[in-house]
Amino acid sequence: MTKTLVVGAYSDTDLTPLKADFDPIFLDGPDDIASLDDSVGAAITAMAYKGHTPFGADQMDRLPNLGLIANYGVGYDAIDVNAANARGIKVTNTPNVLNDDVADLAVGMMLCHGREMMQASEWARSGNWAKHGEYALNRKVSGSTVGIMGLGRIGREIANRLAAFKMDVHYFSRSEKDTPGWTHHDDPVSLASAVDFLIVALVGGQETEKFVSKDVIAAMGPRGVLINISRGTTVDEAALLDALETRAIAGAGLDVFLNEPNIDPRFYALDNVVIQPHQGSGTIETRAAMGQLQRDNITAFHAGNALLTAVN
Amino acid sequence: MTKTLVVGAYSDTDLTPLKADFDPIFLDGPDDIASLDDSVGAAITAMAYKGHTPFGADQMDRLPNLGLIANYGVGYDAIDVNAANARGIKVTNTPNVLNDDVADLAVGMMLCHGREMMQASEWARSGNWAKHGEYALNRKVSGSTVGIMGLGRIGREIANRLAAFKMDVHYFSRSEKDTPGWTHHDDPVSLASAVDFLIVALVGGQETEKFVSKDVIAAMGPRGVLINISRGTTVDEAALLDALETRAIAGAGLDVFLNEPNIDPRFYALDNVVIQPHQGSGTIETRAAMGQLQRDNITAFHAGNALLTAVN
Repeated sequence: MTKTLVVGAYSDTDLTPLKADFDPIFLDGPDDIASLDDSVGAAITAMAYKGHTPFGADQMDRLPNLGLIANYGVGYDAIDVNAANARGIKVTNTPNVLNDDVADLAVGMMLCHGREMMQASEWARSGNWAKHGEYALNRKVSGSTVGIMGLGRIGREIANRLAAFKMDVHYFSRSEKDTPGWTHHDDPVSLASAVDFLIVALVGGQETEKFVSKDVIAAMGPRGVLINISRGTTVDEAALLDALETRAIAGAGLDVFLNEPNIDPRFYALDNVVIQPHQGSGTIETRAAMGQLQRDNITAFHAGNALLTAVN
Repeated sequence: MTKTLVVGAYSDTDLTPLKADFDPIFLDGPDDIASLDDSVGAAITAMAYKGHTPFGADQMDRLPNLGLIANYGVGYDAIDVNAANARGIKVTNTPNVLNDDVADLAVGMMLCHGREMMQASEWARSGNWAKHGEYALNRKVSGSTVGIMGLGRIGREIANRLAAFKMDVHYFSRSEKDTPGWTHHDDPVSLASAVDFLIVALVGGQETEKFVSKDVIAAMGPRGVLINISRGTTVDEAALLDALETRAIAGAGLDVFLNEPNIDPRFYALDNVVIQPHQGSGTIETRAAMGQLQRDNITAFHAGNALLTAVN
């Protein structure tokens, strides 16, 4: 019987090597684990996981000999790591290989928002340019003040790019970090008050839930633009929607949402939001690297070698 | 009688100070100069010009005492500088103040193209994300090889930004320039062959007409993406359209076109082109700075002071 279980929706790029490397059982989601025969479940020692559906104690208990959950993605907030720890299960993720892509999308959303690129494209493509002249003037992005909420690996990649746009970089983190002169804030409201663009690059999970609170959003002010490439949970989404609808802030660029992909329909009515379908790491190159790293962790586990990117 | 003529379509931001500073005559375009009374035309010594309609010897001869044409914009290819020289007319432009915005839009178009941001936005907003799952994987932008065609002030701003995206920067210029290790090419086909993204940052005018030739476009290959923020004239547009339609190159991001705003309708059918309505410098901040610099040149001229940004 196979030792490996694969849970989640994978593309062919990943399915082919997963099958070749591990000849695993494939399941669509965590709920399907309940349908495994006890003997099949007992044979599983490692699993590949991809998705945002919670994976917790109940599922783990159906796999009594599970030793590894190899998550696809850097954010592993769907996995109950405490429950895993209690059962001696190791968890791995796929950090670093996706930093560039996520940072690129953050900068892309800033430029799209400030320069109103989607509206300007529509202006040209609809023939309005020829009929009615120039598109409306919009907003300079270079030289702005930017705040990075969470200066981890992805936050730093974003900041490095924006420094080349001559931006004044501020950041929030619990303690001051070694930076090239960027301004540290130990309070999120202080950061939000100081900047034009506020970029959320926090880790997900319970600790950061609604970290970008109603107060933080209010502190951004009418020039403020919120960019979120982390998790929908990090932002008080109801407060964000209110602020966007009343123009209490200028706008947003969002790759992540609560309840995605069934996002709040209030977003669809807003022309001051750049919406992306959680595609931060969604390039052919990066997804291939993420899949490889996930498989490498499983291979290492089965061989009894050290895991490459353990999180617990 | 007023000494100052203002030609072109200005927004209120500029009209108000133009009126206050110079109490000028306003005309919509160069063709309207023919309608001026001779005595009025003879009183004009300076003019503000904004637009892309050719301004040449015929119009200059209607203004026999003209000493200055102050162009709004860095590109002054609409103005026949040889004809101006022959009549002792100075020409000024508005360089530098728009470099950041134009560079921002170039990077924005690269990210929009590579990450398919407009299509991904439509995927989310149409409900396809909820109905059909993830948007298709697309293309990593960071780490690409990029070629700057024309490493002037704007080209350098673009290269500085892209270096922060870990790109391998190549450039074409007649002679090698002082750079932080970027690769020089003295042949445009050689540059096009070496890179994924080819960014056109040439000056306009006859000398650079179709500089991005059919051969240059062919050398880009199926991964090649052309970005143009210079002038529509710098590219062999027929060859570009053919290459885009047959997917001989991957795509383009274009802010400038031949015959804009009446651009070739073949562009509208292409989903591999990010189209922008010549809005490179189109921010409130930068247009205000451009208008100020144009007026400062006119003020200096009337006062007999040195011009700030003369081009001849």
